[in-house]
Amino acid sequence: MFTTAPPLADVQIAPTSFWGRRRTINRLRTIPGQLKLLRETGQIAALKPDYPGVRHRFWDSDCGKWIEAAWSELAGGGEDPEIRAGAEEIQAGLAGAQEEDGYLQSHVRWDRTPNGTWWSGTGRRWENMLESHELYSMGHVIEGLCAQAENGLGRDGLAIAQRMVDLMWKEFGPEGRPWWDGHAEIEMALFRLSRLTGDPRAADLARGFVDHHGPEGMIPAELAELKRRPEDYGCWRNERSFDYWQASRPLREETALVGHAVRALYLCCGATDQMLAGDETLREPLARIWDSAIHRRMHVTGGLGAHPEGERMGQDYDLPDERAYCETCASIALARWARRLLDDRLEGEYGDILELTLHNAVLSGVSLDGMSYHYSNPTATHPHDTRDKEHFRRTRAPWFGVACCPPNVARTLAQLGTLACSTSAGQACFHLYLPGTFRLGGILWRVETGLPCHGRTVVTVTESSTTPVDVRLRIPGWTEAPTLTVNGVPMAITPGTYATISRTWVAGDRVVLDLPMTVQRLHAHPKVRQHAGQVAVRRGPLIWCLEQEDHGADLADLALPDDAPVDYVPGEGPDGLGILTAIGTRTVASAREPGGPLYATRPPQREAVNLRFIPYAVWGNRSAGEMRVWVRRDP
Amino acid sequence: MFTTAPPLADVQIAPTSFWGRRRTINRLRTIPGQLKLLRETGQIAALKPDYPGVRHRFWDSDCGKWIEAAWSELAGGGEDPEIRAGAEEIQAGLAGAQEEDGYLQSHVRWDRTPNGTWWSGTGRRWENMLESHELYSMGHVIEGLCAQAENGLGRDGLAIAQRMVDLMWKEFGPEGRPWWDGHAEIEMALFRLSRLTGDPRAADLARGFVDHHGPEGMIPAELAELKRRPEDYGCWRNERSFDYWQASRPLREETALVGHAVRALYLCCGATDQMLAGDETLREPLARIWDSAIHRRMHVTGGLGAHPEGERMGQDYDLPDERAYCETCASIALARWARRLLDDRLEGEYGDILELTLHNAVLSGVSLDGMSYHYSNPTATHPHDTRDKEHFRRTRAPWFGVACCPPNVARTLAQLGTLACSTSAGQACFHLYLPGTFRLGGILWRVETGLPCHGRTVVTVTESSTTPVDVRLRIPGWTEAPTLTVNGVPMAITPGTYATISRTWVAGDRVVLDLPMTVQRLHAHPKVRQHAGQVAVRRGPLIWCLEQEDHGADLADLALPDDAPVDYVPGEGPDGLGILTAIGTRTVASAREPGGPLYATRPPQREAVNLRFIPYAVWGNRSAGEMRVWVRRDP
Repeated sequence: MFTTAPPLADVQIAPTSFWGRRRTINRLRTIPGQLKLLRETGQIAALKPDYPGVRHRFWDSDCGKWIEAAWSELAGGGEDPEIRAGAEEIQAGLAGAQEEDGYLQSHVRWDRTPNGTWWSGTGRRWENMLESHELYSMGHVIEGLCAQAENGLGRDGLAIAQRMVDLMWKEFGPEGRPWWDGHAEIEMALFRLSRLTGDPRAADLARGFVDHHGPEGMIPAELAELKRRPEDYGCWRNERSFDYWQASRPLREETALVGHAVRALYLCCGATDQMLAGDETLREPLARIWDSAIHRRMHVTGGLGAHPEGERMGQDYDLPDERAYCETCASIALARWARRLLDDRLEGEYGDILELTLHNAVLSGVSLDGMSYHYSNPTATHPHDTRDKEHFRRTRAPWFGVACCPPNVARTLAQLGTLACSTSAGQACFHLYLPGTFRLGGILWRVETGLPCHGRTVVTVTESSTTPVDVRLRIPGWTEAPTLTVNGVPMAITPGTYATISRTWVAGDRVVLDLPMTVQRLHAHPKVRQHAGQVAVRRGPLIWCLEQEDHGADLADLALPDDAPVDYVPGEGPDGLGILTAIGTRTVASAREPGGPLYATRPPQREAVNLRFIPYAVWGNRSAGEMRVWVRRDP
Repeated sequence: MFTTAPPLADVQIAPTSFWGRRRTINRLRTIPGQLKLLRETGQIAALKPDYPGVRHRFWDSDCGKWIEAAWSELAGGGEDPEIRAGAEEIQAGLAGAQEEDGYLQSHVRWDRTPNGTWWSGTGRRWENMLESHELYSMGHVIEGLCAQAENGLGRDGLAIAQRMVDLMWKEFGPEGRPWWDGHAEIEMALFRLSRLTGDPRAADLARGFVDHHGPEGMIPAELAELKRRPEDYGCWRNERSFDYWQASRPLREETALVGHAVRALYLCCGATDQMLAGDETLREPLARIWDSAIHRRMHVTGGLGAHPEGERMGQDYDLPDERAYCETCASIALARWARRLLDDRLEGEYGDILELTLHNAVLSGVSLDGMSYHYSNPTATHPHDTRDKEHFRRTRAPWFGVACCPPNVARTLAQLGTLACSTSAGQACFHLYLPGTFRLGGILWRVETGLPCHGRTVVTVTESSTTPVDVRLRIPGWTEAPTLTVNGVPMAITPGTYATISRTWVAGDRVVLDLPMTVQRLHAHPKVRQHAGQVAVRRGPLIWCLEQEDHGADLADLALPDDAPVDYVPGEGPDGLGILTAIGTRTVASAREPGGPLYATRPPQREAVNLRFIPYAVWGNRSAGEMRVWVRRDP
């Protein structure tokens, strides 16, 4: 392992910056707002035996993610009595819900549902490896508990985690039976716990879950049940394959990111943890899967999961716009996977993808006021869209029946500091440029930056180092003629790589990185049938989109000619990130009225129109109108 | 009523012509092949009590449609012992399955399914007006029985129909309860029966089913049940409205064609029968609904039903390509509706739509060998399409679990003669030009035509008339400078209208109609977001498409520039209908290989490519590759 994340407290992000504002809203509104909702919708009450309703199978995981957000925010953003009280309350609830032998799932413990289907939960332990989400929920709880201890905020949670490990060791350890969870997550959690506590059993269990994952780890009785009652398995019915659970073949034989996008990406995160812990047999398979995900199956926003059916990955180059799923959790998982890979190797592409998905597909998942969420983040919306209205909305919802995404966004924003950089003895690696202070490689760096809107970043050394420290700076792939100076002396650098500056640093040393930002038109690979003849617009790390709010209805009717200059206008737009303007074309207004012929032998007449692009990250914050990322090149 | 259809025997279509070949295949392969399948898959055996399997709710309707095809073919195409034996066998089966009081549905009679859901059938009579399909099935049986008697092939079937009317009169007549069927069809059947037998009760019942259709005719207990168990109602769940059953409002208040496309169109057919029988209150509502269907909700092929969810109509201008449903039955229903409207008024548009849908969306439903069928007829296909594989196939299937479309195609082809023309005293109306002989307005006409490939049609009078006969000739909307001569004397005519020639005809009189055919590019209304910047190609009545067979994969990558001439090459293509050729463009082959960047800042390089369009009617007859109707205008 090349580097690891610094403690959260070692990164302080300036509150007035772009990301700082998002983090402030996360702390002041999102995290407290979610606590209120967890109280109101039953997740916290469900941790007690007298909860009068029926518990959802995943509810404990929402609690786990929320305490992870809370402890992370307390560590990185400082004390807050309300957040701390919430974390302690939930953690006490989880301790109380845990059974004598360490088992923890409130639904299985208290909701005996003898008539439940296999799909909705049988109410019994370890009966449905594919859909019970038992280890998934325990994984999120363990991660939440780790966040407390990792940041020196108390070690009481570790006892709960440790008892779960004791139980798993008995059930699934060397003396137990092979097992894996249909929704990966436990693998990441156990590697994290093992790094924290040094308990080798946790890492061994995680390795087992990764290594057994696939057809050989299937329980014959479950397989038979699945085949007998396919009607209980929406996902199985849609796919007729085990790809949904990444179980058609062992991970080491997999060639693509397949099936349910979040499950697939969480499994890759866990397997990457295993690789980082020394298992080189996973390097080649993970590289193949990454390659398929990033180079053939990723939306231009960094979203993953082409199809609503099974919330899953499509085939290569199959990237619908209106119907794209692109679950917020999948983009968060992609960011976390990319960040893990950077701990292995400073590949420019890993950093570019981390940046892309955080700035676009992840941020799209939460409103500017921090109080509502997208579950799905498509690249176009239209009111005639026919998808399931629970998960597809043109405006964000305050909560969901399956509320996985909201607390996932909250913990991710709270952990932004550890996603942005990494460190080891004599190493300070900057993956994202956030304004603030960073303690990396033993010394404190101050970063000032105009990103994501302006390309100048200045890194100033505030303390001298006694030994050489290698500073590694990511040069994004989207910039074309970047320059780097160290105390005014230019250095040759290449976009899409990391630049290394090795020296013994003296307080006041100043590194200036200029990343010129031009507006770029992105053309999808010719095999992407959904985007033939269209372009997406990128400026720096941001992907841009058109909204009905600025253009009226019928956005598909707009075109951006190849020769139309696109200009950046700072300060405007829903979040003040600026807008892009261009003179495009559209059908003359009268031809857009209903009443004309449905099919005409003459093309509709066109006229010039002012186009206003806003950052994709902030779509849907003004109205529920249409939105489009991909725009036709020609009239 | 302006005209009615002539007896089927009065139209003889030349067997060597385009439609003649289709009709020969229908007689020699489709109808006998379906009889074999009805025997093998249980529909006929199910008419006996000892059938060992579980009967599908709609199976009796398949039998009804097949005997309608059989009797129609025997009437129009002449005697055939195998077809006659089949019709008699099934008719005897239906008589045997009918209960003492006239009730006929083999599933309800013999499959008592106490655990059945409301959706799949309770096994009891009249318990589920929305989904039981009881009257739908009886309607198709009645239509089949009518076809026998209408054509002088025996009146024994009428006794079965009459007993059904007796039962319905008791249950739903003036002394019964209000009722309507969630899948319209019974209305058409009863008006047809009433015209045949003169029984006013049949027409009164039909009027009741039309007039009660909607929320006021709902049974309160059923409404409550529907709201209590929405999970049993896929269609309800997807829509959250009664539009699916055309029941959100009374038909007279409806403003658009809504919900399940086939149900909606069958209801319009029945309501048009009611209007033709004198109910003027339906004229205005039906005109509104027609307008919405044809001018805002119809695919360019004459297909209806934008969405697979609920097999239903989309919103105005919502016309997806790959995901379009366009059920074969819906296009058949549209043709039958248009033909009914022509009996009311010779509006050019009714004839144009009749022609369009028969030549494209209906013919697409059956293979060239007459032995396999499309259920859904989208305007593009791609192997990555994620829809339900039962109904969406890129090659036709020999049969379906719900086999409504195949016998519907068979009866429609067998009845082509009565769809093509109409008559009354002193009137001979030609809606479609088919080569052959037509006895209309009291005299016999011979028609020779090059349609659908060449635009010259010659109508010759073979018998003199003693009194004046008005000949009314449809001048299609797709032609631009048509000419008409009567015995060499030109007459002024207008595309999209009917031309009338009034004279006392003398044997040897000769009418020559020239309908120049150019290749036209059709542009969808600018509100159709799915086809912005694209064209469909039309020549005469045919819509054309591209297939992978001729171009390799990635058809979305092809473009037809506005200035590229498109030439007609006769004789080629899967059915010898000819092809259209043009020099278009596509991305250079190397850029289409996997491996290049998923998103590139430079547009892919393009090169010229030969485009070959084939008629949409014959797509999917060579391979299971991609198909596209809409092509981008520009590179």
